[in-house]
Formats: sequence, structure tokens, C-alpha cells
Amino acid sequence: MEAHLEGVLAQRDTWTAAQCSIDRAMRAIGNRSTLLLLREAFYGARRFDEFARRVGITEAVAAARLKELVAVGVFERQPYQEPGQRTRHEYVLTETGRDLLPVAMALMQWGDEHLTGPAGPPLRVTHHGCGARVHVEVRCDAGHEVPLAELNIAHR
Amino acid sequence: MEAHLEGVLAQRDTWTAAQCSIDRAMRAIGNRSTLLLLREAFYGARRFDEFARRVGITEAVAAARLKELVAVGVFERQPYQEPGQRTRHEYVLTETGRDLLPVAMALMQWGDEHLTGPAGPPLRVTHHGCGARVHVEVRCDAGHEVPLAELNIAHR
Repeated sequence: MEAHLEGVLAQRDTWTAAQCSIDRAMRAIGNRSTLLLLREAFYGARRFDEFARRVGITEAVAAARLKELVAVGVFERQPYQEPGQRTRHEYVLTETGRDLLPVAMALMQWGDEHLTGPAGPPLRVTHHGCGARVHVEVRCDAGHEVPLAELNIAHR
Repeated sequence: MEAHLEGVLAQRDTWTAAQCSIDRAMRAIGNRSTLLLLREAFYGARRFDEFARRVGITEAVAAARLKELVAVGVFERQPYQEPGQRTRHEYVLTETGRDLLPVAMALMQWGDEHLTGPAGPPLRVTHHGCGARVHVEVRCDAGHEVPLAELNIAHR
């Protein structure tokens, strides 16, 4: 049922996952308000006020989380100026930030499947090009869908 | 660059994401120690001692997190007994739990790509059937890979 652990990994009592990328990712972005800020960026938010208002967090929390996300390379801070106003900054997703789309979509998919009541999922996500439903998949380069029992995990 | 918001969603200042599945998922499983417990379950852990030791958290934290994960349906608690010992319980992944594989893999992939140093990612994940590299993708039912700019999001 579980993944296949290869080579030195096979004996699980001889090692622990000291340099785990899941661990690093969770330390960098693994909290609720950060994921909701990312969601809003995927929906098009760029401005501080909109992030704070739409996520429903205080300005202090929004500022702290956005600062962390700039530091880790998820957002780039870019100046903008409206007529008669001082220069402000907006938060623009970088490629590193857009690479978090599978994380957000995988969470949404699991929430849709397992945490909604009888009303079902609130949103429908489709492909703009063809209209088909969009989902997140674990697949290999040869195109096979890969369930947990067919994952091979080896030390590099 | 961002997703296309359709219909009533198009005007972002008229709504906020009150019933968001990302939000629900993060409330249920969105903390570092929970994701690391899941990682260990994907690697084959079932017993309390092993979870606590391999994740490097206290027994109190492990017990609290595992209890939450049983409540949300990710693990099933099953009795086992070794000769001459009292009955203990192990934590077995349910289908709801296995459905979190894309979340864990998406986090690992992002960490591998953006948070490792010059040594690169610590693990290599391949398909047991064919040996090809495994990754997480956002795809539509028609088989297209879907980038952020081609996501259509509509109210149900």
C-alpha cells in the first residue's frame, strides 16, 4: 500500500528525513494565511489592501506573510503610482510563485472531495482552452498515472 | 497571468471566498508536523513510536496531530497485539489519506525545485512500473497541461 523505499532507504529504522523538501516547503509556505494569500494572487490580487481584506486577516499579519513570501521568492515587490498619490508597491507572482499552483490545486481538490457538505464544492475549475474539468495528478514522464503503491523512492 | 474568473466571480470586490476548499484543507491538515506524519505514512509508518521518532516531534504533539487526522478521516486506528504485550493501535492510511498524496508530492516538487542548495533534491521518485520520473501536474480531463493563465474558475 505504501511507497517502495529503495537501497539505503529500505530500512526505515536506519535513517530519518533530515533534508526533506516537504519539510522545507512547509517551513516556507505551510500555514493557512500564506496559502490564502497565494489563492488570492492566483485570482489576480496584487495590492496589499485587497490581500488583507479578501483573506480576512489583519494588516499586520498580511504584511508579515507577504514579507516572508517576497523573501522566499514567491512574490516580487513592484512600485506603482496612482495620479496624485505617493508611490506604493504591489506583489506580483514570480515563476517560483506560479510553481505553487499544484500545491493550491491539490489542497482544493482534497477539500472538494472530502471536506464539503451536501452542497458540494463551491467552485468549478475548467480549462480555458477546451472547457474540460481540471485536476491535479501524480504522473510519470511516460504518462502513467502513479498511485502510492507504485512510487519508487530512492536516495540520490 | 492569473486565472480567469467567470460570471459572478469576475468582480473580485463583490465577493470573498467564504467556503473555500483550500481554506478547509489547510484548517484540517495545514501544518508542518501533520504533513511530516503523512510523509511517514506514505513511507510505511503505522506505529505511534515510529511516527514520533521519525518526525522528530514530542509524543504529546504526535498524539494530538494523529488524533486530529483520525477525526478528519485520514487515518484509521486499528488494534494490534504483539506476543506478551497489551493491545496497541496503529494508524493506517484510509483512502481519504491516500488522496493527500498529490498535496505531499506537490510540496516536495516545489521544495526540490526552489529550496534545495547546490546538492540538489535529496530523493529521486520514479514509477515502479516503468522507471520514469514522477511529478505532479495540473491537467484537464482532455489531457492538456493547464498553466495558471488557462484556468477558468466559475461558481457552481
